[in-house]
Amino acid sequence: MCGSSPAIAHVYRGTFVHSTPHTALQILEDALLGVDTEGKVSEELNKLSQSCGFSPSEVIQLAQHEFFMPGMVDTHIHAPQYSYAGTALDLPLLQWLNTYTFPVESRFKDLEFARSVYTQVVKRTLRNGTTTACYFATIHTDASLLLGKITNDFGQRALVGKVCMDINNAVKHYKETSEESQEETCRFIAELLKKKYPLVKPVVTPRFALSCSADLLEQLGAIAKNNNLHIQSHISETIEEVNVVKKLFPDSESYTDVYLKHNLLTDKTVMAHGCHLTDEELALFRETGASLSHCPNSNISLCSGMLNVRNVLNHKVKLGLGTDVAGGYSASMLDAVRRTLDTSKVLTIQEPDYCTLSFEEVFRLATLGGSQALSMDDHTGNFEVGKDFDALRVNVAAPEGPIDLVQVDEPKVCDDRNIVEVYVAGRKVVPFE
Amino acid sequence: MCGSSPAIAHVYRGTFVHSTPHTALQILEDALLGVDTEGKVSEELNKLSQSCGFSPSEVIQLAQHEFFMPGMVDTHIHAPQYSYAGTALDLPLLQWLNTYTFPVESRFKDLEFARSVYTQVVKRTLRNGTTTACYFATIHTDASLLLGKITNDFGQRALVGKVCMDINNAVKHYKETSEESQEETCRFIAELLKKKYPLVKPVVTPRFALSCSADLLEQLGAIAKNNNLHIQSHISETIEEVNVVKKLFPDSESYTDVYLKHNLLTDKTVMAHGCHLTDEELALFRETGASLSHCPNSNISLCSGMLNVRNVLNHKVKLGLGTDVAGGYSASMLDAVRRTLDTSKVLTIQEPDYCTLSFEEVFRLATLGGSQALSMDDHTGNFEVGKDFDALRVNVAAPEGPIDLVQVDEPKVCDDRNIVEVYVAGRKVVPFE
Ligand SMILES: [Zn+2]
Ligand SMILES: [Zn+2]
Repeated sequence: MCGSSPAIAHVYRGTFVHSTPHTALQILEDALLGVDTEGKVSEELNKLSQSCGFSPSEVIQLAQHEFFMPGMVDTHIHAPQYSYAGTALDLPLLQWLNTYTFPVESRFKDLEFARSVYTQVVKRTLRNGTTTACYFATIHTDASLLLGKITNDFGQRALVGKVCMDINNAVKHYKETSEESQEETCRFIAELLKKKYPLVKPVVTPRFALSCSADLLEQLGAIAKNNNLHIQSHISETIEEVNVVKKLFPDSESYTDVYLKHNLLTDKTVMAHGCHLTDEELALFRETGASLSHCPNSNISLCSGMLNVRNVLNHKVKLGLGTDVAGGYSASMLDAVRRTLDTSKVLTIQEPDYCTLSFEEVFRLATLGGSQALSMDDHTGNFEVGKDFDALRVNVAAPEGPIDLVQVDEPKVCDDRNIVEVYVAGRKVVPFE
Repeated sequence: MCGSSPAIAHVYRGTFVHSTPHTALQILEDALLGVDTEGKVSEELNKLSQSCGFSPSEVIQLAQHEFFMPGMVDTHIHAPQYSYAGTALDLPLLQWLNTYTFPVESRFKDLEFARSVYTQVVKRTLRNGTTTACYFATIHTDASLLLGKITNDFGQRALVGKVCMDINNAVKHYKETSEESQEETCRFIAELLKKKYPLVKPVVTPRFALSCSADLLEQLGAIAKNNNLHIQSHISETIEEVNVVKKLFPDSESYTDVYLKHNLLTDKTVMAHGCHLTDEELALFRETGASLSHCPNSNISLCSGMLNVRNVLNHKVKLGLGTDVAGGYSASMLDAVRRTLDTSKVLTIQEPDYCTLSFEEVFRLATLGGSQALSMDDHTGNFEVGKDFDALRVNVAAPEGPIDLVQVDEPKVCDDRNIVEVYVAGRKVVPFE
């Protein structure tokens, strides 16, 4: 019966590649997929009812070298830092923040500068196949709201966070008082929610434990709880940072415990990095349902450490991938996929018995894993019936593309040139209108 | 006096970036560079004689976001393996050779298949900015000669090696007898030299110690010596390989000693990898003038090991970078640059006192270092007067390029889209005619 659910708007036929909780990489050849008028996958793959009256001419047929894959989920990216991505990676984290990051972020008080950079980062990540992004903005509420507007305008699914920080000894003018930070966070949340953007939501964003007083952390935990909001921050990125946190929070048993104590570790929390978490801390993540964002480009570029992803997965902690622009120099999730494989292989070089991540597993982390990490997997992450159609149309033989086809026996994506169309919730967002 | 040297054919004005033995990265702004009718850099940068009668209209002015850099030198690439680059990286080296490499290479007996793949790899590497490549072909003499013809036709500077191997227990039909290998090597050398290609030379190419009998190694050493030829092979890529070599050559003190004993370690030798060389072996490289090709993508992709480049440089061993397609999945030297930085940073994560390679140093390794490793630095590698003009015209603001310019205060190259023109010995070879 076709009449009972929303009408089918489009039907695609061809190869579909996606992940399920049980299968890291499922390849469906010559499959049919319908997208309904609400942008959702309307029928099971391969089982589209022939009774709905679609004539073959209305089916959009993928070419031989094309396939659809789920859009990728960037679980950790600093939108303002896109302005210097690819440069300035010669310092360890804490010095890097003081020398490059804070001075640049302070410029986002200027809304025109913000508009220019934020438009570029949203367009660029969409072209790179990021259908969902979890953004850090800056401390500036109006610029952060502008980032929300721009993601909505271009049709990207996003969590947007106004950054909170009431401690900054390096760039004195780039911080807030604790009261300002709380008030502006509340204003940011209220104003962003008032817009009723269908795909863009606020996320409570303490920068990290070293930038926030205990009082501010406490208040932000309460705000998130009272409004049932997502939370994002950084954790255990470098050993130096872990040691400073230990000194500053002597009452906490661990870095993780600092966030836990302030109600910042929930099943809607995503924490970036976690390179140096102990097994006890991973158990706390598992218990609370909090997730990790693995940012391998950033971790290597800043010499921060190497996350043992296998250990995280064995602890059944949710995990997605992040670009962490500009600690990571690339705004491409395909780069995050490659660097995740690299890090896993380096761990194998160090310990030959290490159970290296497979390409299939990493593909899942970049798509379904990211949706799980952001607690969005009930409506994104793969092509299950009823989920939003967030998808990339990939052409491995794209003209002017970076790869030559001699013999192709497996789906591969090389760079953004192979991503010919991007869909979010059924809407074609790339190429730009 | 302008009349005494070859006439100037072109004059370029703008930013030039290159390396010298004393300066890892030299940036010359608003400089003038003349290229003579023989394709050589004809005058010192910035000092082009005004008396030669060039009117301003004849000067080719680079745009604001453009610069010239030296062409990159890929010191180790397997041309036939381009046919499966980007796939099949799930096995350790010795199994990988047996499972993927040997079966594919055996197909290059078919000259039409060889022509198709070799044309693609030469065009692709040129577009990627590789002005000089040191190629392994296969055991097939005629296909190897065809690779030489194709590199000459497209204007790439190259060393081309017909692979020699008289031991192969995995793919029995993909090997030669010792006599065949010697005879065909001599035929390959004679026929390639007879062509008098100005930029393409033969290189004696024993695959590696495990594929060659002691007798064959001995003969190849003699052939190289008698003809004053380049030599290339592999060394100390994985620990397993090192251990097998030790067993098979009990009279040799080390892997390096195996090649030394057979006269294969000369100042025209380039050995790929060397991840597990001892300091004593590096000293032998230094003494003989042999060089190393660092192939970080391959070393990580196959979990082979991580070369300590700083230690190699401290031993004053010549070193260039290689893509090692298809152990490395990328045919781009820009990828080799990034992976070299990554490996150096991983070594820093492991050992915080490690002296990380700088971007500037790695830029030099990809250009001048490669020329030194191939003993070609007397006529390529940078923009010194009298050297061949092997150059890339880079536009960081290329339309449809992968990066957005917010603020650029340093030259950067992101991918092949930013390489708008490629010159070898003064001839524009990209875009293709
Ligand atoms: Zn971050
Ligand atoms: Zn090789």
